[in-house]
Amino acid sequence: MKRFQVAGIGNAMVDVLAPTPDDFLARHGIQKGIMQLIDQERAVALYDALGPTRQISGGSAANTIAGLAHMGARTTYVGKVRDDQLGAIFAHDLRAQGAVFDTPLAPATTEQETGRCLVCVTADGERSMNTYLGVSEFLGPDDIDPGAMADADWLYLEGYRFDGPDSKEAFAKAIAATKQGGGRVSVTLSDPFCVERHRAAFRALVRDDVDLLFANRAEMISLYQTDDLDAALDQAAAEAAIVACTDGANGAHILTGGERWHVPAEPTTVVDATGAGDLFAAGFLWGLVNGRTPAECGRMGCLAAAEVISHIGARPEVDLRDIYRAQGL
Amino acid sequence: MKRFQVAGIGNAMVDVLAPTPDDFLARHGIQKGIMQLIDQERAVALYDALGPTRQISGGSAANTIAGLAHMGARTTYVGKVRDDQLGAIFAHDLRAQGAVFDTPLAPATTEQETGRCLVCVTADGERSMNTYLGVSEFLGPDDIDPGAMADADWLYLEGYRFDGPDSKEAFAKAIAATKQGGGRVSVTLSDPFCVERHRAAFRALVRDDVDLLFANRAEMISLYQTDDLDAALDQAAAEAAIVACTDGANGAHILTGGERWHVPAEPTTVVDATGAGDLFAAGFLWGLVNGRTPAECGRMGCLAAAEVISHIGARPEVDLRDIYRAQGL
Repeated sequence: MKRFQVAGIGNAMVDVLAPTPDDFLARHGIQKGIMQLIDQERAVALYDALGPTRQISGGSAANTIAGLAHMGARTTYVGKVRDDQLGAIFAHDLRAQGAVFDTPLAPATTEQETGRCLVCVTADGERSMNTYLGVSEFLGPDDIDPGAMADADWLYLEGYRFDGPDSKEAFAKAIAATKQGGGRVSVTLSDPFCVERHRAAFRALVRDDVDLLFANRAEMISLYQTDDLDAALDQAAAEAAIVACTDGANGAHILTGGERWHVPAEPTTVVDATGAGDLFAAGFLWGLVNGRTPAECGRMGCLAAAEVISHIGARPEVDLRDIYRAQGL
Repeated sequence: MKRFQVAGIGNAMVDVLAPTPDDFLARHGIQKGIMQLIDQERAVALYDALGPTRQISGGSAANTIAGLAHMGARTTYVGKVRDDQLGAIFAHDLRAQGAVFDTPLAPATTEQETGRCLVCVTADGERSMNTYLGVSEFLGPDDIDPGAMADADWLYLEGYRFDGPDSKEAFAKAIAATKQGGGRVSVTLSDPFCVERHRAAFRALVRDDVDLLFANRAEMISLYQTDDLDAALDQAAAEAAIVACTDGANGAHILTGGERWHVPAEPTTVVDATGAGDLFAAGFLWGLVNGRTPAECGRMGCLAAAEVISHIGARPEVDLRDIYRAQGL
């Protein structure tokens, strides 16, 4: 048995959540429903303009790993925070969930602080993310412990981190180590604009290294530059052994071994959509490491996503295993 | 017209909230439902033992001032934070609510960090508070701007801050300045154990300086060392012009000008009792500065308290003026 069932790598950050009127987005030039990168200056200006906030650990892959740890999976996470108060909060929350997190901290004297994501939550539950990467941008190959990666059944890579050149090297190092150890590689595309920025690299990655591809409809369509989701899914399935594509209120599509399943979304009231994709991936991977069928994995993903969007914050608040049991999973 | 309707002074801190099983309290020697002071060492150990948390600005008087600012009152707050990330969060959240907050920050090199309160929230909504005061303990007379205090209709003092000798001096300076400017003085007793620690000082304060006394049943009984709430209320009313005493699910008792009113509590589901007393005071003071009757002030206090205990966190999340309007207030 390997030490870890899933090892995740991504942008380590704390979410700063504020309920926001719709016109705030327009006034401040924020694109609704997506993640946009901002520099420190804009982070300060935007934060000043926001109403009162609450701070909850976030980061896409970190949410997935926290979700998996919450379900009982053996997990580790690699991501860069500074030795500051927000870094301590981030580390605590992952470890409190049971995940191993021992990426070396950036010293307190580092200019960039722990990254944060200013999340504007509008009344419709949509989240518009403004990410100041801070030190998470400086994740590099030295932060990867090949021994830990080789000791993982699954590697889980966050597409967002493709924005950093050193991090691409870090990914390559982690992929090589995981494969050498007999583990498999999964990636999430994270965001359609992220796909646009790095389409060639993502295409090569999926073609050459990825066993399991997570994406949503917009990302999948952007990756293969087509308007036809089915065509994109078929192309993805020809390249990656497993494809799991979320499709909003329409649930998720799972493709593997030449077969395809559709899993309906779990009905819920959307309070804060932050983390929906992250927790879908957590539920799906939890099914996978427990030998569930593709359809069951998809269902577990949809149930986990439904829980996390029913409240503020991108980490689960109830025991998801209870939900699975209640659904006979 | 004075610049401020209410100026508050208290322990500035960020709440660190964690859902906690009941047996966690016993295992870690935490007394349920009260505020206990802890040192930095215990703060670190307890935080390590807690599950994932969320961080929301708190501090008793700061919650009251934030609530008042939220309602539209002209307010200022005096409390000590360090120039660190949690201090920046605290300052932002007060200012974002519209309150003036310009207490000099403790330099980033100060040993004590911004204060925080580890709030264990059990399934019954009860909160057990473990307060690491940090730099808030060092609030002193130099932090008081007499000009601002003289320009306030009401001074609002948080009993908790009586735990610091310098802060008592700061209170005296603020009281003198407010009175010189023709303003009035209110105080909240904060906690029955806080009353026990400082009974003589509280008694003298109420007798000599206080125009409006806020307390709950346990604090009132402790202050006058009697089991008879009515006797305690009568004694308080003989000393302070206005007495507003909350009584849990039984609502609140208001005494002034030789008369007495009982105001029923607003029915609600308790999710997190943090801030109930703080927001009662906010609603009551908002009524007072708007010339409402004692019974109306009490009702406004109970409605504000009901809103804040219906969700996680001690600051209002909806426009309380809408609630007041809906109730014909």
